Amino acid sequence: MKEKLERLTKLLNEIHDISAANAVLEWDQQVNMPRGAAENRGEQMATLSKIVHLKSTSDEMGKLLDELTEEAKGLDPNSDEARLIKVSKRHYDKNTKVSGEWVAAFSKETAVAQSIWEEARANDDFELFRPHLEKLVDLRKEYAEFFKPYDHVYDPLLDDFEPGMKTAEVKEIFTPLKKEQVELIQEIAQRPQVDNSFLFLEYDEKGQIEFGKKVISDFGYDWNHGRQDKSVHPFTTSFGLNDVRITTKVVPDFLNPCLFGTFHECGHALYEQGVDKKYNRTPLADGASMAIHESQSRMWENLVSRSKAFWKRYYKDLQEIFPSQLGNVDLETFYKGVNKVEPSLIRIEADEATYNLHIMLRLEMEIGLMDGSIAAKDAAKVWKEKFNAYLGIVPPNDREGVLQDVHWSSGLFGYFSTYALGNLVSSQVWEKMEEDIPDIESQIEKGDFSKLLGWHREHVHRYGAKYEPQELVQMITGEKINAAAFMRYLKKKFGAIYGIA
Amino acid sequence: MKEKLERLTKLLNEIHDISAANAVLEWDQQVNMPRGAAENRGEQMATLSKIVHLKSTSDEMGKLLDELTEEAKGLDPNSDEARLIKVSKRHYDKNTKVSGEWVAAFSKETAVAQSIWEEARANDDFELFRPHLEKLVDLRKEYAEFFKPYDHVYDPLLDDFEPGMKTAEVKEIFTPLKKEQVELIQEIAQRPQVDNSFLFLEYDEKGQIEFGKKVISDFGYDWNHGRQDKSVHPFTTSFGLNDVRITTKVVPDFLNPCLFGTFHECGHALYEQGVDKKYNRTPLADGASMAIHESQSRMWENLVSRSKAFWKRYYKDLQEIFPSQLGNVDLETFYKGVNKVEPSLIRIEADEATYNLHIMLRLEMEIGLMDGSIAAKDAAKVWKEKFNAYLGIVPPNDREGVLQDVHWSSGLFGYFSTYALGNLVSSQVWEKMEEDIPDIESQIEKGDFSKLLGWHREHVHRYGAKYEPQELVQMITGEKINAAAFMRYLKKKFGAIYGIA
Repeated sequence: MKEKLERLTKLLNEIHDISAANAVLEWDQQVNMPRGAAENRGEQMATLSKIVHLKSTSDEMGKLLDELTEEAKGLDPNSDEARLIKVSKRHYDKNTKVSGEWVAAFSKETAVAQSIWEEARANDDFELFRPHLEKLVDLRKEYAEFFKPYDHVYDPLLDDFEPGMKTAEVKEIFTPLKKEQVELIQEIAQRPQVDNSFLFLEYDEKGQIEFGKKVISDFGYDWNHGRQDKSVHPFTTSFGLNDVRITTKVVPDFLNPCLFGTFHECGHALYEQGVDKKYNRTPLADGASMAIHESQSRMWENLVSRSKAFWKRYYKDLQEIFPSQLGNVDLETFYKGVNKVEPSLIRIEADEATYNLHIMLRLEMEIGLMDGSIAAKDAAKVWKEKFNAYLGIVPPNDREGVLQDVHWSSGLFGYFSTYALGNLVSSQVWEKMEEDIPDIESQIEKGDFSKLLGWHREHVHRYGAKYEPQELVQMITGEKINAAAFMRYLKKKFGAIYGIA
Repeated sequence: MKEKLERLTKLLNEIHDISAANAVLEWDQQVNMPRGAAENRGEQMATLSKIVHLKSTSDEMGKLLDELTEEAKGLDPNSDEARLIKVSKRHYDKNTKVSGEWVAAFSKETAVAQSIWEEARANDDFELFRPHLEKLVDLRKEYAEFFKPYDHVYDPLLDDFEPGMKTAEVKEIFTPLKKEQVELIQEIAQRPQVDNSFLFLEYDEKGQIEFGKKVISDFGYDWNHGRQDKSVHPFTTSFGLNDVRITTKVVPDFLNPCLFGTFHECGHALYEQGVDKKYNRTPLADGASMAIHESQSRMWENLVSRSKAFWKRYYKDLQEIFPSQLGNVDLETFYKGVNKVEPSLIRIEADEATYNLHIMLRLEMEIGLMDGSIAAKDAAKVWKEKFNAYLGIVPPNDREGVLQDVHWSSGLFGYFSTYALGNLVSSQVWEKMEEDIPDIESQIEKGDFSKLLGWHREHVHRYGAKYEPQELVQMITGEKINAAAFMRYLKKKFGAIYGIA
């Protein structure tokens, strides 16, 4: 077994190296690449992807994993070895169950659909995109068939992002949450609105970036194993556990995107920088799932950086950088401003209290599209109805409605719920952490994040992708993923801000 | 044959893509990578290199090239197809003739030798490096044996950088040149020295980079297919013909490195940006040789940017950026200053008139080390003797003598001569261009480089690696590489500057 494990590790290391190289190419494409290089870069990335695919689905890999899976029955199922074999086998099965014909058809369709979607969105023309949405839903139904038997046709899609998670589980989580969130934002809507106009003044780029860097250095971002650059869409990427990079975007007349975006991406990066180095160059050198990843980014973005304690420490620093914009705005006003709740059309601009509703709408639509209860041709209409029901606004057009996100046009179904699940997990884990670190608030007020980070390193980060998301949350909190802690958090925080009893 | 050529092209495209990816990784390593990522990056690059090697030496590739080489006998030997097959076969033979044992031993020894060399140089301790130099010379002798029969044991080394070139040829070129160059610098030494002290004032980074960018934009550097960054050692790299990047280094109190370094690297980049796009993703998407590449970089650095005509156009721009440093330095003084000739210890700081002597010394030593007429243990002593004979200085130590260059410690033998050959070729080609564009000087005075670049595109760049260096120079000038044009250039230019009849 030892020899086979060594051989497996060697193969996995190679695959990881090539994937990391491809990630460097993609990072470079977003951050540095001259425009005229796009076509060649696409070819290079396709060549590397093909090699990764061939190596990941090789007969040798299949045989090795079959034998090791059998032999691993004698191991502690929670040992690193057993888990490495399990996770690798899972990837292998995912990669080999889907036919080459389907992959080719899917690649072809998404390439077309994305450019059509761009045009459709620009022209507010759902009908242009409709046939492609229909086609993509059909393709995703075909995809699910490769993973029969399943409890629900949506399960295989969800499982791509949340290993082991079932549609029934997310329904059970979201159904009561939706009701409570809708009630909360209705209550908030009846209270006097807070002011956040000062966030929309001119803020120079240098100051925004400087402040962000200072804060994430305090968080514990390791610049010896990472760096920050600018890109059109902020993202985090890693080329192994020793090179975890983040990007940010600066909007000259809106303070939030650079600041909270930087904290968000830093949260992703701290997770990957904190994975146990013994997993490096293997499939365990990753987050447990998209939701767990998002729980980390959301934690730093919201639970930490949108808290009163945080701004008690950092607001004076920000005022010093932007005296003319913020000199006359007091801490309380600023704190309320960055936490303003207001139903709005666009998901990525939504606040903490309304965000999940944007997700639930999409989740219900995806499940409906997959199980046939919603026809792709009706997607724009259904979107408007649901949007009005949950957020109290009827989108005036499809551009700011069903056409706003890139996900579906690129074939991504099953992804959205991870954003909302991440919010829930962040609060669940936070409550647990507060039991161990009761004075966490006063530590944040001092700008001391060492215990906070240390706790998450210990309980979340170091395990990497060893455990499935539900397992991990259960290990940490004693419960499965659920919305109770998150609703307690929302009610307490926004009750105080909006004066709700 | 058509099918086989298509298959060959497909294989070559893949190999090119992976090599390009590796070049991105290396560029990132020099320009962006956080320090803590070095080990993982090394592993990633090793993995990609291994895949390139396996694909480049595969049985399929060998069989295909054997068959195509046979079938290509029916083709015009100067057709793109025949040349692609020839160049690919050449690479294949180079890659497969050398044993795996030798490659492993060489990698191991150079890894050690480089760090020992760093220490030896820092401590001025040739004896520390000596056993590694001996070992590396032995390894290079073994290397040459793989390419028997040869005319001279140094031929296979030279051939790695100058395809088809023989030791006898470079000896024939350099022997008379050495004599003439030594005489010229002796004459210059008897004339009053020019002043260049103004080059060593404080010049802020932004201004240096701004000026460099403005000039290379005028040269024709295509920013849509390239970019410039800072790095410790300036270099040019390409990831295919549509992404050719340069780097520069800024020294705050010396104007030359950033300025002339930028023009030099731009010359390399203009060559690659000018290769016919039909060769992209094949081995023809490259320069003809190191010397031809260097002829292009040296041409822009020296023949163009160290000319009076150039500074007639650009000096006022530079003065505007640096008024306090250059406001009182007139054009003539500045022109002479950037062309100051003075024998000095360090090759990379040498001026146009002395540079080749640094090279010839190294070339003679390499040939001597390989043919046994110089023992590696005597290298430091021989260096000093030769240095004194050619440049009239005895190096006071080995740090600034035999230990100054990284090349030997990394196993590079056969490379140095390409620097000097490049100088010669640049002048040969320039004389030919002047026949076609007699008013080139007045065009440069206007900052109009379009005809100059266009001529080089037409006669040099577009061919890429299709022709061997001697073939190409013969095609362009009707002669093989020789020193006559270069000596005419040196005598005319420095005769005027130093008032030599």
